[in-house]
Amino acid sequence: MRNENTVVKRIERAARSGKTTRCLGIGDDAALWTPTKGYETILTCDWFLEGTHFLRDKHPAGVVGWKCLARAVSDIAAMGGEPACFLLSLAVPSSLTGNWLDELLRGLRRASRTFHCELAGGDTTQWDRVLISITVIGEARKGRAVLRSGARPGDILFVSGTLGEAEFGLRQLRKQRGFARARIVAERKHLYPEPRLALGKWLATKRLATAMMDLSDGLSTDLPRLCMASSVGARIYASSLPVCPLAKAQESTTLALHGGDDYELLFAVSPSKLRRLPASFRGVRLTRIGEVTQEKKLVLVENGSAHPLPSGGWDPFREG
Amino acid sequence: MRNENTVVKRIERAARSGKTTRCLGIGDDAALWTPTKGYETILTCDWFLEGTHFLRDKHPAGVVGWKCLARAVSDIAAMGGEPACFLLSLAVPSSLTGNWLDELLRGLRRASRTFHCELAGGDTTQWDRVLISITVIGEARKGRAVLRSGARPGDILFVSGTLGEAEFGLRQLRKQRGFARARIVAERKHLYPEPRLALGKWLATKRLATAMMDLSDGLSTDLPRLCMASSVGARIYASSLPVCPLAKAQESTTLALHGGDDYELLFAVSPSKLRRLPASFRGVRLTRIGEVTQEKKLVLVENGSAHPLPSGGWDPFREG
Repeated sequence: MRNENTVVKRIERAARSGKTTRCLGIGDDAALWTPTKGYETILTCDWFLEGTHFLRDKHPAGVVGWKCLARAVSDIAAMGGEPACFLLSLAVPSSLTGNWLDELLRGLRRASRTFHCELAGGDTTQWDRVLISITVIGEARKGRAVLRSGARPGDILFVSGTLGEAEFGLRQLRKQRGFARARIVAERKHLYPEPRLALGKWLATKRLATAMMDLSDGLSTDLPRLCMASSVGARIYASSLPVCPLAKAQESTTLALHGGDDYELLFAVSPSKLRRLPASFRGVRLTRIGEVTQEKKLVLVENGSAHPLPSGGWDPFREG
Repeated sequence: MRNENTVVKRIERAARSGKTTRCLGIGDDAALWTPTKGYETILTCDWFLEGTHFLRDKHPAGVVGWKCLARAVSDIAAMGGEPACFLLSLAVPSSLTGNWLDELLRGLRRASRTFHCELAGGDTTQWDRVLISITVIGEARKGRAVLRSGARPGDILFVSGTLGEAEFGLRQLRKQRGFARARIVAERKHLYPEPRLALGKWLATKRLATAMMDLSDGLSTDLPRLCMASSVGARIYASSLPVCPLAKAQESTTLALHGGDDYELLFAVSPSKLRRLPASFRGVRLTRIGEVTQEKKLVLVENGSAHPLPSGGWDPFREG
């Protein structure tokens, strides 16, 4: 007989990593976790829903497992913190509690090891579609976490890596038949995003970023959030955007402005600290894309003329 | 235009409590929280799904708001901890982002104040049914949290309050037309459960319980979990169960054994500490219902004869 206890056992088995653990988790009402002295706790949660965030007939279960954790861990990177452990809220149809669940757990375990973020507990139930909510617990040295609200007029805006690449990858994947397989970097970025943990932590530790966030919904949707939190505006230069090299010129700018799912970092740097910022960090390019302005407007400079930056990224509640 | 930012604003407004806060939350990528020195962090998450855990045409939105937090906070009570803050993962149809959402947030805010557990952040998206996943962060003095795994043969088993009352209340509510209203205590217990926070913390602080858990899925489903975690068995006396006084005799025993949603505490006490346990704690009765046995079996003594206790509580994956 298949029941909740055996589903939980399957998850527990997949989570077991052999090494000693900081978390006392699965099997009790709640998980216990010992915070590090002198550190603040960072808490974040993220939905990953069938039909909205992934397609069951397109995304292999292993991709679902990797990506649901990677997305949530990216919020920890965006604060300049380090992940510690996570809770998995999982609802699946009964028919998927066998091989499909095992493959999902393998992807999740691989992500968990890569990001040094262990499974501490969760909740499982049955549902007609796959629902995942991941909570990640991370840490940052007290007072060092980077918020969205610290950007000041005159600060320079940077992004890591390439923008619009994941969206380009998604478009390529849509042309494939059957399950998605990563053949090029852009497709891999859509399927297996890698949160910029090392960069985020380095920027926080060196106090280089005045404000930071991760780009999950697209620059044109996320940048206004940083500006709103900081009570500032921004000016972005289209020609400076680190676009996806495979896309056609005009498409690549549109993708860089509005494409979601990149999980790159957007951060502001005070002009006085500019010279301490390298051109790249551990192989990830850091690109200056514009500056923070006093006037609370978002301006895109393109082909020599400035116009308002329209918000065109991902918003689940947009009505038209 | 209604979009994700305005939905988040609505939640943020409802969460604002006026007093200074320990959590720096909504509006950033993640929430920051300062753990108390000398305490361990307790982490738990709980699903609350339309159609599974509540019915939209039966349960008012305010009940949904209260109950989703109460259930999750009950896991903190079960560890003997105190809640600190929570994350709300919420998916709703666009049509419910107005009054319905406001009423849900009012119920949630009332629960949040009652349990001293503040909203620290979360994630919102759109979905065709209401999906809620709540993560609660709590604390317990280092080494004092009570696990499921500490029960020893010879320990005495206790429960708080009345068992099967919420299930009885649910059955009464099913007879009402339209939205459920609490007319009697049992109905109130189904709609507005109150986690046993004070009792759990007291038992943990005084080191009175060797093992503890909350009864969410029914005694016959939850007790085996405690026994499995402790590698023990248990013997329960039907005549000792604190049954719902309004139910008929035979029904009341069935409800007490298998009814879910009570959120009472089940705990084991060493015989040497029995005399330190009062008959009731702050108006909540503590009832001795049986004992922990070395033999890993679950036995129910009823009308003078002992037979195996069948598991009859809530299990979303049970196949028959």
